[in-house]
Amino acid sequence: MPDKPSTAHRVSRLRALLRRSGAEAFLILDLKNIRYLTGFSGSDGALLVGAGKPVLLVDGRYTTQAAKEAPGARVVLYGDKATGIADALSAGGYGKAGFEPSVMTVDFLGALKRKAKKVRWMPLPAESGSIRAVKDSSEIAHIRKAIRIATGALQSTLAAIRPGVCELDVAVELEYAMRKKGAEGPSFDTIIASGPNSALPHARPGRRKIRAGDFLVVDYGAVSGGYHSDETCTFVIGRAGKRHEKLYALVKEAHDRALAAVRPGVLCRDVDAAARTVIDQAGYGPLFSHGTGHGLGLDVHEAPRLSALSEAVLEEGMVITIEPGIYLPGFGGIRVEDAILVTRAGAHVLTEFSKKLQVIG
Amino acid sequence: MPDKPSTAHRVSRLRALLRRSGAEAFLILDLKNIRYLTGFSGSDGALLVGAGKPVLLVDGRYTTQAAKEAPGARVVLYGDKATGIADALSAGGYGKAGFEPSVMTVDFLGALKRKAKKVRWMPLPAESGSIRAVKDSSEIAHIRKAIRIATGALQSTLAAIRPGVCELDVAVELEYAMRKKGAEGPSFDTIIASGPNSALPHARPGRRKIRAGDFLVVDYGAVSGGYHSDETCTFVIGRAGKRHEKLYALVKEAHDRALAAVRPGVLCRDVDAAARTVIDQAGYGPLFSHGTGHGLGLDVHEAPRLSALSEAVLEEGMVITIEPGIYLPGFGGIRVEDAILVTRAGAHVLTEFSKKLQVIG
Repeated sequence: MPDKPSTAHRVSRLRALLRRSGAEAFLILDLKNIRYLTGFSGSDGALLVGAGKPVLLVDGRYTTQAAKEAPGARVVLYGDKATGIADALSAGGYGKAGFEPSVMTVDFLGALKRKAKKVRWMPLPAESGSIRAVKDSSEIAHIRKAIRIATGALQSTLAAIRPGVCELDVAVELEYAMRKKGAEGPSFDTIIASGPNSALPHARPGRRKIRAGDFLVVDYGAVSGGYHSDETCTFVIGRAGKRHEKLYALVKEAHDRALAAVRPGVLCRDVDAAARTVIDQAGYGPLFSHGTGHGLGLDVHEAPRLSALSEAVLEEGMVITIEPGIYLPGFGGIRVEDAILVTRAGAHVLTEFSKKLQVIG
Repeated sequence: MPDKPSTAHRVSRLRALLRRSGAEAFLILDLKNIRYLTGFSGSDGALLVGAGKPVLLVDGRYTTQAAKEAPGARVVLYGDKATGIADALSAGGYGKAGFEPSVMTVDFLGALKRKAKKVRWMPLPAESGSIRAVKDSSEIAHIRKAIRIATGALQSTLAAIRPGVCELDVAVELEYAMRKKGAEGPSFDTIIASGPNSALPHARPGRRKIRAGDFLVVDYGAVSGGYHSDETCTFVIGRAGKRHEKLYALVKEAHDRALAAVRPGVLCRDVDAAARTVIDQAGYGPLFSHGTGHGLGLDVHEAPRLSALSEAVLEEGMVITIEPGIYLPGFGGIRVEDAILVTRAGAHVLTEFSKKLQVIG
């Protein structure tokens, strides 16, 4: 059973960072961070975390919703956002405030400096970018539900995938099936990439008709309770040849090796290396042109990153993707992606769709 | 017949601004601005406009697509984005560069300053925020197509709207119908708000079942060729009473007065005032809690804004929405929204759905 979202606990972890930072209050503008720390899910607002109850600033559209969704915060209405923030800083007696440097625009920081003349501004410490990386049980429950919706939708859409059907039609049907099953939306623009198009890791579904002998990459996800699922299944259409089988087995092996490397305390770049070594040794290294995975939560891509350069360390409770791939220009691509939970015992696979090679159509 | 998208003409207008600004080159990071100026529709990149051919910087995913979509630009590959921009500035010999202050983050400006130590940075002049406000004929053709898709989808969904059906199911069906008719997606999360929910201007569709006697606000749009439609129809379910008719007629009158005020050279705030005066004089002023409209194009909300504070002036070729509304807490809301083209003769309505009060269900 999921526990209740403990926004108080999340705020207290941010406060520990605040105490070490030298700032007196943190201004949070990233809406996903605001949702994480308060429960508020509106499309605009600001959160001030200092001493006492966090102050959630919203415009006139959101006062009712904010009061309902964010019982742990004091909701304050603003007309002009920068003025509202300046007033809240002044009311709290804060002289030194931290902000999210990857979210704060030059324009808005200028407006804040004009409105709050006495406040000194500093970027939040780098660790603040990872505050959402370890998930609690209520978050894992949301991700599981998103996965369940997505899996059911793919299963009900599979029958419609056959030679002659175009990629775009499959994408439209799959997204519709996810909505019908309760998704708030797709996690991202669904990738349905067939034949040579599957060799493009970020292909957009188009009018190409699926043909026998194609690899078909389906990279898709659903949003539920604000949380994202993300999974890639690679199918073969019609009949799998030796080349299909060999390439798929190689990517699946890389995927499985990365999975086996997952454990709390392991460097993310070592998980990446576990997958990459398999592909390198088979001579396909340059064709694995992206990282092995990423964190998954309120954003579809969030901390930690699993790449060759990542300094991040896995912790129990992180939810990440493992998604190696090989892309052969002109022929096709294979990507095998699961979402996994990092547990004390290693990787626990959350995704439900089998990653054995499936021939469909 | 639409002419071809004249990205060269658009770049030359930006260059005129560049000459007056004191900067030697403009760095464009807003992806909609990049699309407008080059045709490139990828999800990441940067554009440098100085002397000579504009330089479009993209990562490895997008070199092929950029070369195809942006023939007017020189495509340059980067590994690290800030490094790529610094190298392009250095190659062009630029010592003073402008940036979009509402898009540039504090983090990224810091990275640019570290990588391009000799470059002085300045915010782009305010007029740069309106470079896309006046549409050319190819843009108007895209907007018209988006409107045609949206209208057809609403017409085919109307039959499913009746007492007992929940808001969310209508939203899912309407968005599916738009996709089936060729939309790249909805312009924004479709608003289907019934009864008391229609009193919330930004309601999210939920499980409430539509009832006879409800106002039903349908605020929706489709994306086609990257361009957005945006329209609101307010229906009455079952049978319209005197109160429905009176309130609807008032909002429709405000809408028509604003439409009649549209003309090149007119201040946007005067168009807002034309609608607002009608609602004020009927005693409902405080219940019209938002601006009268906004520009429409590659973004669903762009320049100009039509509000009481707007300093913008209408120009021939602008595409804007006119959308007054009244919201009675606990009872319901009415909003009437058309997209219009500003012509020499005044407002030309682009939306196709009749704004006469319609009783459905």
